[in-house]
Amino acid sequence: MSIRIGIFGYGNLGRGIESAIRQNDDLTLAAVFTRRPPETVKIRTEGVPVYHADEAEKHAADIDVMIMCGGSATDLPEQTPALAKLFNVVDSFDTHAKIPEHFAAVNAAAEQSGKVAVISVGWDPGMFSLNRLYAGAVLPEGKDYTFWGKGVSQGHSDAIRRIDGVADAKQYTIPVDAALEAVRSGSCPELTTRQKHLRECFVVAKEGADLARIENEIKTMPNYFADYDTIVHFITKEELDRDHSGIPHGGFVIRTGKTGFDGEHNHVIEYSLKLDSNPEFTSSVIVAYARAAARLNAKGESGCKTVLDIPPVLLSPESAEELRKRLL
Amino acid sequence: MSIRIGIFGYGNLGRGIESAIRQNDDLTLAAVFTRRPPETVKIRTEGVPVYHADEAEKHAADIDVMIMCGGSATDLPEQTPALAKLFNVVDSFDTHAKIPEHFAAVNAAAEQSGKVAVISVGWDPGMFSLNRLYAGAVLPEGKDYTFWGKGVSQGHSDAIRRIDGVADAKQYTIPVDAALEAVRSGSCPELTTRQKHLRECFVVAKEGADLARIENEIKTMPNYFADYDTIVHFITKEELDRDHSGIPHGGFVIRTGKTGFDGEHNHVIEYSLKLDSNPEFTSSVIVAYARAAARLNAKGESGCKTVLDIPPVLLSPESAEELRKRLL
Repeated sequence: MSIRIGIFGYGNLGRGIESAIRQNDDLTLAAVFTRRPPETVKIRTEGVPVYHADEAEKHAADIDVMIMCGGSATDLPEQTPALAKLFNVVDSFDTHAKIPEHFAAVNAAAEQSGKVAVISVGWDPGMFSLNRLYAGAVLPEGKDYTFWGKGVSQGHSDAIRRIDGVADAKQYTIPVDAALEAVRSGSCPELTTRQKHLRECFVVAKEGADLARIENEIKTMPNYFADYDTIVHFITKEELDRDHSGIPHGGFVIRTGKTGFDGEHNHVIEYSLKLDSNPEFTSSVIVAYARAAARLNAKGESGCKTVLDIPPVLLSPESAEELRKRLL
Repeated sequence: MSIRIGIFGYGNLGRGIESAIRQNDDLTLAAVFTRRPPETVKIRTEGVPVYHADEAEKHAADIDVMIMCGGSATDLPEQTPALAKLFNVVDSFDTHAKIPEHFAAVNAAAEQSGKVAVISVGWDPGMFSLNRLYAGAVLPEGKDYTFWGKGVSQGHSDAIRRIDGVADAKQYTIPVDAALEAVRSGSCPELTTRQKHLRECFVVAKEGADLARIENEIKTMPNYFADYDTIVHFITKEELDRDHSGIPHGGFVIRTGKTGFDGEHNHVIEYSLKLDSNPEFTSSVIVAYARAAARLNAKGESGCKTVLDIPPVLLSPESAEELRKRLL
């Protein structure tokens, strides 16, 4: 029987979820919920209703897993615990420092309702976290490194757009090759922020703006750019739209460690992602965990989980027998 | 409380387990079991007893997890089910085609005894299998590829040693760079055996042996070499011992796949290992799963499991709270 999925919030991530569901025969999109007037929201899947977010409660019996597609800053801290009182839920909460607090709030709600809630699903947090866990458990005497990119950082792009005289901007985070190579060598380097990543900015200035001032404001912006080598290119709006409209991302989790009675052998474990579309890949991870959430709840489990807790076998539509035969 | 580990069989893998246990504060080596006369087996850890394999039953109360270090061809199919009647066990059974049969035999024994048995642990099967599962679940419309090496194949080295006139030999399996690049490009190439890997052989010939005949016998050997581009070097015993005494290995699991309403976005997931010591890395994976086996059994679980079944959080000595805080 197909698992009925609800999408709560229809932006980039919601659209990614919609398209990921179509790639999985055992999942069905049951409804989309939005805070906008539902009649103004046009979705891609034929015959699927769009409801107002306030109506979600009425559809508790029609939805096996609700996928929360709001933002981590203000939406999810409120919405995920609220919806976990009614539904199995999956979210992609990614404010790292606040995950323990979010976990506690969601867990309380899901324990009470007897539902399963999976939080912080995606690739970081998500697949990268898993890889840090596996690699760390296997090589206890070692060190791991995470590099992000090449990819678009929405936060940094937004920060540039807030500068006076900037019409539009896109910022790419880029891992420094020399740092990657140093890590892979097993030398366990101590790397500064500047040594690990550089930041490349494509900026459309408003007419008559002072380019030198804008460039200086970007490069000296605390937290966002001051600690990095930053490259600034001024381009036209047409160039920005033509060459920089995608949302690529990716990165690397590398752990090196030693084994042997005298630590005489080195090992390198490397996991990397190269993604054309950050929201679509995140969505693809989320729908696999939505499958797991439905299965866990069907087995009688409840409460908040993360990718670290969930048996891998639950992510695949194939049976355990098939997977053992094909993958081991 | 420390988890008490037994080692059943003291060869390369048994020694790797012994050294891996020393890297994990919550694990203790309780005893080594051997089919040789125990007094002839000298181990590295002070104060740990060596018993004859036949005595294992007497020590059932002193061992939380028995790690099976025999070979897949004849030892493990017999030993793992037998020992699972008495102990939680972990093995590294790697005869891919016989895993379903081995699973069934071990599961019957472990269900009956109420113990947990984890089979086929290591890196392939093992970490590579996990990565095929995760990547396949996340990118259902895609294709995955496994490459092995650069590393020593014991089976191929043995096959060369059986040729008349060969004194010793070491064979390296090497992934072909052009094939790796074609896969990473997302073009989903169909690759032949020959296109994926090449085989490099370092051979010590007996005095007066016909080198041309040996080279020809290697290159035309069915199953082992005939389907590959094979390079043969004749070297001296001293060169072999000096330059080829290690047991390095590694490899790559790469999945590429598409997302989007029209499959318009490509993604590449890549996992790779570069290992100085194949048996020590395999051992490091096994001891992490021994920890998981002890924890699962303490929770009341029983029966046969594989890496695909086990929640990642159980592999780490850290608590779930610490891991959420540090890794998500």
